[in-house]
Amino acid sequence: MEWRSAGTPPREPHGYWALAMPALRALFHAACSGPGSRPPRQIRLSETCNRPAMKSQPADPQRLAARMADIAPFHVMELLQRARTLQASGRSIITLCVGEPDFPTPEPMLDAAMAFLRGGDVHYTPALGLPQLREAIAGYYASRFGLDIPASRIVVTAGASAAMLLVLGVLINPGDRWLLPDPGYPCNRHFVRLLDGVPAALEVDEASDFQATAARVAAAWDEATRGLIVATPSNPTGTVLDAPALGELCRTVAGLGGHLVVDEIYQGLNYGCAAHTALALDAGAFVINSFSKYFGMTGWRLGWLVAPPAYVRAIEKLAQNLYICAPTPAQHAALAAFRPNTLQLLEQRRAEFAARRDFLRPALQSLGFGLPGDPRGAFYLYADVSALCDDSYAFAHDLLEHCGVAVTPGLDFGANSCRRFVRLAYSRDTEQLEQAVQRMAAFIAHSR
Amino acid sequence: MEWRSAGTPPREPHGYWALAMPALRALFHAACSGPGSRPPRQIRLSETCNRPAMKSQPADPQRLAARMADIAPFHVMELLQRARTLQASGRSIITLCVGEPDFPTPEPMLDAAMAFLRGGDVHYTPALGLPQLREAIAGYYASRFGLDIPASRIVVTAGASAAMLLVLGVLINPGDRWLLPDPGYPCNRHFVRLLDGVPAALEVDEASDFQATAARVAAAWDEATRGLIVATPSNPTGTVLDAPALGELCRTVAGLGGHLVVDEIYQGLNYGCAAHTALALDAGAFVINSFSKYFGMTGWRLGWLVAPPAYVRAIEKLAQNLYICAPTPAQHAALAAFRPNTLQLLEQRRAEFAARRDFLRPALQSLGFGLPGDPRGAFYLYADVSALCDDSYAFAHDLLEHCGVAVTPGLDFGANSCRRFVRLAYSRDTEQLEQAVQRMAAFIAHSR
Repeated sequence: MEWRSAGTPPREPHGYWALAMPALRALFHAACSGPGSRPPRQIRLSETCNRPAMKSQPADPQRLAARMADIAPFHVMELLQRARTLQASGRSIITLCVGEPDFPTPEPMLDAAMAFLRGGDVHYTPALGLPQLREAIAGYYASRFGLDIPASRIVVTAGASAAMLLVLGVLINPGDRWLLPDPGYPCNRHFVRLLDGVPAALEVDEASDFQATAARVAAAWDEATRGLIVATPSNPTGTVLDAPALGELCRTVAGLGGHLVVDEIYQGLNYGCAAHTALALDAGAFVINSFSKYFGMTGWRLGWLVAPPAYVRAIEKLAQNLYICAPTPAQHAALAAFRPNTLQLLEQRRAEFAARRDFLRPALQSLGFGLPGDPRGAFYLYADVSALCDDSYAFAHDLLEHCGVAVTPGLDFGANSCRRFVRLAYSRDTEQLEQAVQRMAAFIAHSR
Repeated sequence: MEWRSAGTPPREPHGYWALAMPALRALFHAACSGPGSRPPRQIRLSETCNRPAMKSQPADPQRLAARMADIAPFHVMELLQRARTLQASGRSIITLCVGEPDFPTPEPMLDAAMAFLRGGDVHYTPALGLPQLREAIAGYYASRFGLDIPASRIVVTAGASAAMLLVLGVLINPGDRWLLPDPGYPCNRHFVRLLDGVPAALEVDEASDFQATAARVAAAWDEATRGLIVATPSNPTGTVLDAPALGELCRTVAGLGGHLVVDEIYQGLNYGCAAHTALALDAGAFVINSFSKYFGMTGWRLGWLVAPPAYVRAIEKLAQNLYICAPTPAQHAALAAFRPNTLQLLEQRRAEFAARRDFLRPALQSLGFGLPGDPRGAFYLYADVSALCDDSYAFAHDLLEHCGVAVTPGLDFGANSCRRFVRLAYSRDTEQLEQAVQRMAAFIAHSR
């Protein structure tokens, strides 16, 4: 399935239909409201939920590049905006939709940044990053994973976002088809589309722990296909590709003559399984990482990539032109990221995330959420609400309006069963998670 | 002229030619070395200068995207690398090739950043930027330019680089032709190429102060042309489009049904003329600005753009997907950029730049550099070395090797007469500029 031709959510009705819709909805629900017309365990959703349109409507849309029709906004932003309005009016809102740790940046990174800033010398760095930071990242691969990755293969980037654009910018020609798991992080398919590549949804489900499999990749590959992007741990599902499955993907893609990009942005946030890297398995893979999640530096916008040596020069050229360099204060802050005291703190945080997950998962199950797959990483649970209702977007809307809990609708992660799922981020402390569960329990009970 | 088909510099010879070249060169120069074979005022350049190849040579170039063959590296980086090597060996190097102010980030911005960092709350901001920063930028347009630009039109970006990609990302379809002045900032044409647009060089020269004119734009426009990018003040020439000329460009592009992007990154660094903005002239223009140059915040990677209202939503969608947000510490630092004490400091720095320019310009002229055009902005002089030698790249190489002065070869700014020009940045203090002039004088005298 190509995203450009399938999976578009229902659009807002226009013109006559927009005027007529409320009356038609009322008629429809009056006709359906008798006993037994709705499965007894399903909850009653709001009828007025403003379902999102995929396309924006500027004054002169024909003057927009064609790609913009295929690049979706983050639908959760509308919910967040509504959440802020509710908060401003005095409502208590618990946001379980935020894709970043709630912890502050660790002290050692803050201290390193402030020590650097006191000198005032905040000038450009080389496009590939501060040499000492590239060395420090190489050292981390050695000490943590026992890998010898030369610093010359490491490119420091303005967040993992920049890493993805650099990798795809040097690889994608217009019309090239790339496979991406659906559900998956939506920006990845939009990077492909930005470059006029064709992102193709590789539908994944609980049968493969919401991860790509070698068999599905081989079956979906065609003559126009040039690459595969996978993420481990995955956003939104939190599932992990273990080393044998990842190794099989590496061999499959290499055998097909394609490129493999592995998003390891949540590396280190693993629960009950060891962190690993595709770099140990495939010298030809492009690996993307970040200081945002495990290292707690989201707002700094700093990441890195590891490329096969033959591609580093092209990536450097593109980085010079697209970014000049990654933010200098962030690079100096990150020099403190691999120190023993920092890593000790990060491991404490990891234990806290694990405890939150271990609370939230069974609590959601007891409320009727389905939790397929094995969410052993990141800080997300991808919850199936089909036992509760027939539309996860309206469910997310109602959760916010009626009990002040903000979750992310599946719509933000692709087209595959997206009306069945919501993503809950346990990037809030256990007290807030408990309160959110209580509120959701009351809402569900009240809505039946 | 399309950049993709013209202006490629000579490549390094390969294979047999690479082996035979030194001997052939020696033969050629032996044959030419009689008196009168070189114009008497020209200097003798090194024969061993390693002229750059435009294309990188990865192990498997056919696996690179086609665009990478058209995206040039910054050639000056090779000179800078050599400069570092020379410095490491104890040589004194004066770098006049750096496109950033030598001043530190102003204290108020440093203080604002550190006050913010002490809280540790370095999380994502909205994709369009901190609301209070967008308001502050709107306030700057009101107080400095008397313009009413609503904050809703202002997008805070990860440097002007991000602003350019966002604007062009929502406008360019593959095959769209865009006009850009040559010489000009090279990244701009590479942004067009990244999106599989066709950057077309609009040759500009001293007759129009190295700026586009309405007549040239109209003459160069064809059916595939969709837009024009201009910069005022310009990098590399330092020249300025005055308001009447800019207004005429605005009307011409609008009349042709195209888009106009105005790069105002060096706005505020004007000498002997008032800063102005295309926003006062054209409600349909996309205007790009930066905290890097006038505000002295290069390494922070922060800029902004002002878009026509109908395009803001599309830009927001793209910004969410490509950047998430601009760096948060930088945004908090920039909140201090428009305070009276900051602006007072920035005006002192502007006066210092003006004094440097007023020293360097006549000094270079006395050495035989041509200085066509009226460099009333930025911190660049675009100097014609054709009275001194026949190749500005070799000249830049020799200046570095023989007198430790690093300048940027014209090759980095396009194909139009690029072998005649070098760019000198007066982003070094007057003492260093004086020393550089002395060294260059000695080098030129010695080489004749």
